[in-house]
Amino acid sequence: MVRVFTPPTKPTPPERRELTEHYRVVRNLSTRLIEPLSPEDCVVQSMPDCSPTKWHLAHTTWFFERFVLRAFDQGFAAYDDRYEYLFNSYYNAVGKRQARPKRGMLTRPGLGEVLAYRDVVDERLLKLLGTCKQEDYASMAELIEIGLHHEQQHQELLLMDVKHLLSLSPMPNVAYDSELEKSTVLHSCDLRFLSFDGGILPIGTNPADGFCFDNETPAHEALIHPFEIANRCVTNAEYAEFVADDGYRRSEFWLDAGWTWVNTNGIEHPMYWCPRTKAPTSIEDYSEYTLGGDRALAGAEPVSHVSFFEADAYARWAGCRLPTEFEWEHAACETGDQSGQFDLNVLHPRAANQNEEGTAQMQGNVWQWTSSAYLGYPGYAPVPGALGEYNGKFMNGQMVARGSSCLTPPGHARVSYRNFFHPDKRWVCVGLRLAKDA
Amino acid sequence: MVRVFTPPTKPTPPERRELTEHYRVVRNLSTRLIEPLSPEDCVVQSMPDCSPTKWHLAHTTWFFERFVLRAFDQGFAAYDDRYEYLFNSYYNAVGKRQARPKRGMLTRPGLGEVLAYRDVVDERLLKLLGTCKQEDYASMAELIEIGLHHEQQHQELLLMDVKHLLSLSPMPNVAYDSELEKSTVLHSCDLRFLSFDGGILPIGTNPADGFCFDNETPAHEALIHPFEIANRCVTNAEYAEFVADDGYRRSEFWLDAGWTWVNTNGIEHPMYWCPRTKAPTSIEDYSEYTLGGDRALAGAEPVSHVSFFEADAYARWAGCRLPTEFEWEHAACETGDQSGQFDLNVLHPRAANQNEEGTAQMQGNVWQWTSSAYLGYPGYAPVPGALGEYNGKFMNGQMVARGSSCLTPPGHARVSYRNFFHPDKRWVCVGLRLAKDA
Amino acid sequence: MVRVFTPPTKPTPPERRELTEHYRVVRNLSTRLIEPLSPEDCVVQSMPDCSPTKWHLAHTTWFFERFVLRAFDQGFAAYDDRYEYLFNSYYNAVGKRQARPKRGMLTRPGLGEVLAYRDVVDERLLKLLGTCKQEDYASMAELIEIGLHHEQQHQELLLMDVKHLLSLSPMPNVAYDSELEKSTVLHSCDLRFLSFDGGILPIGTNPADGFCFDNETPAHEALIHPFEIANRCVTNAEYAEFVADDGYRRSEFWLDAGWTWVNTNGIEHPMYWCPRTKAPTSIEDYSEYTLGGDRALAGAEPVSHVSFFEADAYARWAGCRLPTEFEWEHAACETGDQSGQFDLNVLHPRAANQNEEGTAQMQGNVWQWTSSAYLGYPGYAPVPGALGEYNGKFMNGQMVARGSSCLTPPGHARVSYRNFFHPDKRWVCVGLRLAKDA
Amino acid sequence: MVRVFTPPTKPTPPERRELTEHYRVVRNLSTRLIEPLSPEDCVVQSMPDCSPTKWHLAHTTWFFERFVLRAFDQGFAAYDDRYEYLFNSYYNAVGKRQARPKRGMLTRPGLGEVLAYRDVVDERLLKLLGTCKQEDYASMAELIEIGLHHEQQHQELLLMDVKHLLSLSPMPNVAYDSELEKSTVLHSCDLRFLSFDGGILPIGTNPADGFCFDNETPAHEALIHPFEIANRCVTNAEYAEFVADDGYRRSEFWLDAGWTWVNTNGIEHPMYWCPRTKAPTSIEDYSEYTLGGDRALAGAEPVSHVSFFEADAYARWAGCRLPTEFEWEHAACETGDQSGQFDLNVLHPRAANQNEEGTAQMQGNVWQWTSSAYLGYPGYAPVPGALGEYNGKFMNGQMVARGSSCLTPPGHARVSYRNFFHPDKRWVCVGLRLAKDA
Repeated sequence: MVRVFTPPTKPTPPERRELTEHYRVVRNLSTRLIEPLSPEDCVVQSMPDCSPTKWHLAHTTWFFERFVLRAFDQGFAAYDDRYEYLFNSYYNAVGKRQARPKRGMLTRPGLGEVLAYRDVVDERLLKLLGTCKQEDYASMAELIEIGLHHEQQHQELLLMDVKHLLSLSPMPNVAYDSELEKSTVLHSCDLRFLSFDGGILPIGTNPADGFCFDNETPAHEALIHPFEIANRCVTNAEYAEFVADDGYRRSEFWLDAGWTWVNTNGIEHPMYWCPRTKAPTSIEDYSEYTLGGDRALAGAEPVSHVSFFEADAYARWAGCRLPTEFEWEHAACETGDQSGQFDLNVLHPRAANQNEEGTAQMQGNVWQWTSSAYLGYPGYAPVPGALGEYNGKFMNGQMVARGSSCLTPPGHARVSYRNFFHPDKRWVCVGLRLAKDA
Repeated sequence: MVRVFTPPTKPTPPERRELTEHYRVVRNLSTRLIEPLSPEDCVVQSMPDCSPTKWHLAHTTWFFERFVLRAFDQGFAAYDDRYEYLFNSYYNAVGKRQARPKRGMLTRPGLGEVLAYRDVVDERLLKLLGTCKQEDYASMAELIEIGLHHEQQHQELLLMDVKHLLSLSPMPNVAYDSELEKSTVLHSCDLRFLSFDGGILPIGTNPADGFCFDNETPAHEALIHPFEIANRCVTNAEYAEFVADDGYRRSEFWLDAGWTWVNTNGIEHPMYWCPRTKAPTSIEDYSEYTLGGDRALAGAEPVSHVSFFEADAYARWAGCRLPTEFEWEHAACETGDQSGQFDLNVLHPRAANQNEEGTAQMQGNVWQWTSSAYLGYPGYAPVPGALGEYNGKFMNGQMVARGSSCLTPPGHARVSYRNFFHPDKRWVCVGLRLAKDA
Repeated sequence: MVRVFTPPTKPTPPERRELTEHYRVVRNLSTRLIEPLSPEDCVVQSMPDCSPTKWHLAHTTWFFERFVLRAFDQGFAAYDDRYEYLFNSYYNAVGKRQARPKRGMLTRPGLGEVLAYRDVVDERLLKLLGTCKQEDYASMAELIEIGLHHEQQHQELLLMDVKHLLSLSPMPNVAYDSELEKSTVLHSCDLRFLSFDGGILPIGTNPADGFCFDNETPAHEALIHPFEIANRCVTNAEYAEFVADDGYRRSEFWLDAGWTWVNTNGIEHPMYWCPRTKAPTSIEDYSEYTLGGDRALAGAEPVSHVSFFEADAYARWAGCRLPTEFEWEHAACETGDQSGQFDLNVLHPRAANQNEEGTAQMQGNVWQWTSSAYLGYPGYAPVPGALGEYNGKFMNGQMVARGSSCLTPPGHARVSYRNFFHPDKRWVCVGLRLAKDA
Repeated sequence: MVRVFTPPTKPTPPERRELTEHYRVVRNLSTRLIEPLSPEDCVVQSMPDCSPTKWHLAHTTWFFERFVLRAFDQGFAAYDDRYEYLFNSYYNAVGKRQARPKRGMLTRPGLGEVLAYRDVVDERLLKLLGTCKQEDYASMAELIEIGLHHEQQHQELLLMDVKHLLSLSPMPNVAYDSELEKSTVLHSCDLRFLSFDGGILPIGTNPADGFCFDNETPAHEALIHPFEIANRCVTNAEYAEFVADDGYRRSEFWLDAGWTWVNTNGIEHPMYWCPRTKAPTSIEDYSEYTLGGDRALAGAEPVSHVSFFEADAYARWAGCRLPTEFEWEHAACETGDQSGQFDLNVLHPRAANQNEEGTAQMQGNVWQWTSSAYLGYPGYAPVPGALGEYNGKFMNGQMVARGSSCLTPPGHARVSYRNFFHPDKRWVCVGLRLAKDA
């Protein structure tokens, strides 16, 4: 009765020219992202969750060197033997490495040397793309595509990490010129709930249908009960009411671990909100740190940089709940919203358009916490080899966030994309969308 | 098409006489459990997860006083005003309390005073049971039943905690005389896998069908894909092969958080195994700490006191996986095994009988880790009031264990029972049962 | 010109009868001290600095067994082989042992068994005292005397530790009936400073002059500059002025490490002061926890349970300083005050008598912090063997406190006695006496 | 009889031209020190004890701006208001500041901006030096001299901190070209002990006798007992014998706190020794990290980068002890050795010349641990105002090191100079010299 798994099929690789262009575009964005940064900005690690900018640039390059050039480049020789130790992230199968919380100790190689490393690997890889044997091409193209999506993930991480680092500084901390003031909308569209019937519905994707990470596979069927989901994300103004209603001081809204987290860390508001008075009582009393500097907190924009615990508590306070990741995916498939767009001049979530119908802000604004723990789908198996460590080994203790954010590079988002973070993490550009039982 | 929720209905309460007898039996077991213990054994807290025996005895009593006597006893006066602070466990709605890791600082009231407190509350409650108005009876009986199941949970915790405490002592540490030697079986039955077709199947229970905790509700339908599940739990002998195969030193079997846990804590074997040599190579090189003292590690018995991380790594090493809690529940419903029996003389898991058919050891031996994160069922809502904190607020970061153990008191286990622990906890009498995709 | 060291000479041992009586008296006091305590009170360890009462009773007994009986008792057999592991405190030369912070895990042997152990060792030792060969007597008597002074140290520790443990309880926590109310004096004598000329003066003592610990040796000469020292200790009333003058919030009075300590731990008043209001402003706003329970804070009594950091900050606030241990010893020699007396009914410091001349409260009230770091005297050498670990290895990072306290057993104090604690310790019954340059 | 204190007298200030030249020379050395470093090297903080190079450069500049320009420059305006927060080190009297362990988070202002800040302050200060009124000159000159000695302290810290940072890198880590190989001497001179009679002897200095820090005052008399002191420091070869004799595994040589430190941190050799084999047995089995890169460990050179605990344990193993700081100062006064010389090409301690008489290596090689706790001299009073925090508030928990090291800038060392560190610190270029009782 129940269709269980579509066996995954290899996708047709893109043309060489197309892949070459894709490679250039993605790699080029990484270096554009660091233009406003100094060498000092690029070396410091602001907390163990973050990596130095320079490390992101080098690690993504090492990824191509290690998994593509080494496998397909005739006469391959490592650019520098020590880089494998320095720039391996977490692949135990590859070997030992610089401890994660010590990435910021690596003052050498300097930023210039890392950029030179990028150039050399790019040159070799682009040459290989043009010259490799046809029989190798499909396998190589698959790895290159993983590498490009991997680099895009690090582009978003890089922006998150730069934001965190610069937010710590008592100095003026504008990273990116921005047109934020112009684009701010005063009022978000009204909150409405859309109803869905549920049923036995398709979830996930298969590689044959286009690029995806292994954690989105296999495509399978899931039983979804009838539910309602909000047309847009929760706004700063709405969230400020929760704060004003003593939301952070009333245990009844919080999971036990969240309540401990709030009290241990003295949490009183979202991460980048900054009270302008000793006893703030409304949204006017806060400014917000953004990649364009400090500015007034905009009530119509989606609340961002909240932990799962905060999202979950807000939802309970609002008499709702978070959607499951399956509900979110089903709603996204049905409504087809792809509203967000990556814009280096507006690296900030934007208010939902008042005239928008269906769902808004499913993509390109803020990631959206779900109530789903990050686990393997039925029949899930990691890809073989070292890359099997990419996703599978993290399937414990983390929660799924869906959608994508204003920091997600173009072409990276997918409706089946599963992002995942520990429930106390807030340096992600993540917010929430309400749901409830039908 | 899909039947979603059966609305929960109030159960018919038991007769007064029956409930009185139930109360006597359960409460009496608590005091029998401490017979072999000294006042010193009863006051010390061996780690934050554990509570002192004396605290268990007092807290379960306070539960009846606070939630039953206070609500239904005319002219109620608290036995001692300070006890609410001392013996409230985690009910924020009730008020402030002794910090959990400091429960062991409470040398006063002493064991004798706590036993006197038990007597007074028992007397009042039994009197109330006989005299309360009929219109109150149903509500009161419901709370008493929760209190009795609550006390049974603490009976198992008490035994787990005593085992942990006594295991720390370099002195002879026999807590309970035991007939372990007589009952040890040399060979477990062979490992076989039973196949299930899956489908849309009933999961959970409703209060109308008998006592259950709110986390087992509502009864609902779940989509289960075809699977196979082992006829019995993994044995010490089988687990020893994993150890001998360097299972604890090979990252490929471990979740990332598990690998960190293993290396941070220097984990090399299950919690109560004790190497008899510097470099143990087989099961003969270990003894095992039990509530009956140290003894040779018995190969045919189920491995116990392993963390979720260990269970999960073992399953991956064995080319299998852990079952989901839904697979486990479905298999248990179908096979109906109720093999275990609580026996104060054998507080230890026992080998599966060689002749057993279907599934063995579903109940009464070791809890069994599942691959399911502990989350609310579709439509789950905590009960109103302070008791709503009983289960719901812990639905984050924990994994579900199913079945019951040799330390679970008689009458406490259910096929829909959901136990839950953080994935690194090992002081629970918990093991694992293998599963795989069909 | 300078007389440097008097070579230490062995003292004449006391008569057997006299030593026997001394032994009985000292050992008997230990068991009298625990009369008001329950087995539960005796097993719990309230913090790593403290030891369980039961452990003190067993350790002091083990000291006699290990260092006297084992050396002199023909046919010696250990009472229990495991006790050496359990009850060795810190003698590396003797072997491995129960980790100090885990002493509270030892529920077994129970209090009864420890008391039985005491009886057996006492019986053997008293018998040996009567029967040992005359040629062994002097050596044995020396060790027994060390053992008795060692036991007296632990009697004071036991009282300090019980006070700390019971202070943690929200329950009524009277340990010892007390006549505190009757003995409280309303006004202390006036503060006066006594002048001393200084010079090259004798410091320390030699074993030939009576029992002393090795850290008091060798007697030697020290250069003391002219100084003044207060006639009595600082009172609670005086200390309360420092508190009211924002002493805990003004960095200028504090050593850097003290300032960190104050802010990290949120210190606002002496350890056992308990504010009765949210914003206390005067001494009337505090109660004090004592071994006789909570009572009003008595202004005329010496302030106690302050850290070195607090004592040093108070002195700086008062425009004075702490005395060096040499100034203190010289003043004590010259004025000869032996005011305090151990009284099981008044285990609390007492106000200085208004008519007292010279120095009051040098002994028997509160230990007195000095400005001297705890280091070896010129020519200091630890005694040979395991007992060399008694004092010498602690000569780093601690400050000297001089005098004795109301918890110091009779016959234990000496003018050359050097007590020592880390500068943040406050569970000691310690206060301060002011000094200044002449 | 005893001469106690010489009242300190203000020194005659240097000529304006002389001070101008002194200022130029000292300030110039700071920028020469960073020539081999990249911006990345200059921003990272490798541990809380260390500061980023950039921070050292800015803080020393701020010191002149805050304490000289602000006081004497007419029409003073702060270069940047935020710099006081960023670059104040520990002056509570000045106000709040960047937390010490977070100095490495300050990516902005960048190195270039800090160098520009230096230029502006230098220009202003040099102009002021030429133009200030004569009546202000003496006071200003005194502050400038403090500022220059302060900068020299930070020059040594900068080199220590750079050494620590670069030692963490798995990459080639040569900071400074060096002529180490040429200068290495194969054999040190023989170890001899020089005898001193002791007596009542002058210690410390007064400002009237030339620049000194307040912790060297007042000059006073101290009683020194007869002693012997080694002609040179302990060498690597000698220290290696201690290591080979299991010195790090035998508790009898260690202070209790040192023994805990060794075992908690797994210490097995001096900080920058690097074993070339798994089980090193002699000095040939080690290389050493230096500011000129890794090289063979040179037996004849003084051991360096050992903690007080190691120095003290070595001395005990050798049957000796450390000298007191008074013994050290007296020996240095008598023998007049000023052997070391700062050389940017040899930033490394050097072997003692074989022909040397009297004491060698008193200055300019390695600081030398003494057995003296860092406390105020009799009659010590900090200078008034914020600069009173310079030394006095650290007089607790630290040990005195005497002499100077190969990293100490020219003109900074003095025979009465008191350096001080916590007993576990090893990133200092510090070794030891043996002493014993006469």
